[in-house]
Amino acid sequence: MAQQHLDPTDPTAGPSPTLDFGRAGGTPTGDALAAYLRAQATEFLRALRLHRETGSGQNGTEESVDAARALRHSARRISGSLHTYRPLLDADWSEEMRPELAWLSGTLALEHACAARLERLLLALHRLSGSTAFPAQSAASAVGGRVTGAGRSTGTGPVPAPTVTAERGNLTVGAAKAGALLERQLTLARTRAHSTALQALGSSRFHAVADKVAVLASEVPLTPAAAVADLRPLAAAAGERLNDAVTALPLVTAGHPYNAEALIHGLSPDPAPHPQDGPWHQVRLLLRLHRYAGEVLHPAGTPTDVRLLAAGQALNLHRDASEAAAAAASAARTPRIAPATAYALGVLHADQRHEVEAARFAFQQSWQKQAVGTL
Amino acid sequence: MAQQHLDPTDPTAGPSPTLDFGRAGGTPTGDALAAYLRAQATEFLRALRLHRETGSGQNGTEESVDAARALRHSARRISGSLHTYRPLLDADWSEEMRPELAWLSGTLALEHACAARLERLLLALHRLSGSTAFPAQSAASAVGGRVTGAGRSTGTGPVPAPTVTAERGNLTVGAAKAGALLERQLTLARTRAHSTALQALGSSRFHAVADKVAVLASEVPLTPAAAVADLRPLAAAAGERLNDAVTALPLVTAGHPYNAEALIHGLSPDPAPHPQDGPWHQVRLLLRLHRYAGEVLHPAGTPTDVRLLAAGQALNLHRDASEAAAAAASAARTPRIAPATAYALGVLHADQRHEVEAARFAFQQSWQKQAVGTL
Repeated sequence: MAQQHLDPTDPTAGPSPTLDFGRAGGTPTGDALAAYLRAQATEFLRALRLHRETGSGQNGTEESVDAARALRHSARRISGSLHTYRPLLDADWSEEMRPELAWLSGTLALEHACAARLERLLLALHRLSGSTAFPAQSAASAVGGRVTGAGRSTGTGPVPAPTVTAERGNLTVGAAKAGALLERQLTLARTRAHSTALQALGSSRFHAVADKVAVLASEVPLTPAAAVADLRPLAAAAGERLNDAVTALPLVTAGHPYNAEALIHGLSPDPAPHPQDGPWHQVRLLLRLHRYAGEVLHPAGTPTDVRLLAAGQALNLHRDASEAAAAAASAARTPRIAPATAYALGVLHADQRHEVEAARFAFQQSWQKQAVGTL
Repeated sequence: MAQQHLDPTDPTAGPSPTLDFGRAGGTPTGDALAAYLRAQATEFLRALRLHRETGSGQNGTEESVDAARALRHSARRISGSLHTYRPLLDADWSEEMRPELAWLSGTLALEHACAARLERLLLALHRLSGSTAFPAQSAASAVGGRVTGAGRSTGTGPVPAPTVTAERGNLTVGAAKAGALLERQLTLARTRAHSTALQALGSSRFHAVADKVAVLASEVPLTPAAAVADLRPLAAAAGERLNDAVTALPLVTAGHPYNAEALIHGLSPDPAPHPQDGPWHQVRLLLRLHRYAGEVLHPAGTPTDVRLLAAGQALNLHRDASEAAAAAASAARTPRIAPATAYALGVLHADQRHEVEAARFAFQQSWQKQAVGTL
């Protein structure tokens, strides 16, 4: 299906007005792709070495958390480039490589996600309790908590372990119990994710990926035609896919503040995440692919980067709040909890669903600005 | 304190730029006030007669509900005018009359408030359950439920009894139990309010008020100087009081969508209504006084009426959502409720607090428009 976008003679495949990379220099070809992939593979190997050196015990140090994040970042970039520029790369190699990279970054992301989710939920509980007594350690993230979310959203810092706890601060009885329950459940999930990640990093499956990345660092399997092929139609196609997906979003609704859409089905019996979130999660992934595609063309960055980053951050917040809301709802299904605990979890769930709505509004605003800004 | 605004030589007492009534004709004097009070007194007596004729049994008919509302409306207008134009009226008479009218309209409002609150909460539960199966009877209010709220907010129709029930529709288990609990509690409150209102209407205290209103319909106790006194400085002072109170509101915050202010203290242990709501409730009352003051000057209405009404409706929604949120929180403190019920009430509470926030945003928007429109 994506192939139809890749035909350079297809008039719809030209650079879209809102997503043109606006390159000033010569035509970027397969050589630029090879350079990008080599650089990312090198970064992957550096991060892997760092991760091994800094230890990978039960509670990762800040360095090992940084290293794991760097591993994920490069794995995602390699995987994304393999997808966007697939016609220029050895097909068998690509098809074997991508799912392995996805498995690796997914496995490594889980521990961090659990920690960030707990941090987000505990900060929200403190906010909802009107508690100003944030522990000093997390004061910085607490101040920006509402706007920037937890560490995962902004990528500004690691979240080695939650620095806000349910016991500290001035939580009320229901909120304190809800916090303690969430802390128990998400810490358990985090510990499991940590073990899984350690097992993964020690597995033969991982060693096979690492070996392939080591080869990639010096030798990129381009197709014979790739060296002189123009990368831009393929990058533009990634932009088109993003544009198409954004067009399908309910942006008119999202642009109306307090539209109350995100909490619809908030009391639905379905324990699965809200199906309405799916298209937004999809756009988040396509936006990332689009951004990585641009990095290949413009290693030094483009003028629209800041706006794309803002839109991407809104979608990260959307994902974080969506998952936090689901965690609160899930905790409320724990048997034999007190009504006050359940009530606090209900308030917390609704609060996070409103953060979902706020994130959609923020995305709509930044996307609109971007469209206007580049016209 | 208000006296400083009433001095016609005080330069701050002149018509404010945003609240000028923009009168084209001659100077309105005490005669206009007398005509207004006579008309409102006549309306009060008409409504009282209608209320007696249409019966006042346990479940009021639509006509008797209409009549009770008309009684409240005229009582509020008489009381408001007595306040705004106090220097022009016999002081002893005024001071005796106002608390009695306030008692009457407060007593009559309670039953309607309970019914409207239940309707609002049940509609919200249906919305939160993703239920589209609204009973046919309430389809109209359901469609506009989010924006216009229940009948009390808009004054477009009576709410004789909730037409949405917890049992009907597709409510989930927790939501259904929460709905049934709210229905039980608010129906009981409504029944009590109905009995109290009936007792009040049969009391000698009420008959004394009604007698005084009957006299007012033909004979308004103006002071000797009132006949030639200009009403406008007094009306402008009411506008000033409104302006001052609005200026003290956190409108900058309110104008930022999703500022998350309304739910702060959402899990606070204090069972009292949110103290942050107070200044908004106060502005609601001052806006009403300002509107009534304008009715005296311009019986045919003014060009700014529509915008004032929009601002007033936002504040009505604010009050309704604030009280509904408090009712959900209060229901959650019922002993021995199931955790699923408490969870649903928590979601419902947070939902209504977000409606509070949405109403503040709507007020900020309409107030801004009004200020710009009349400059």
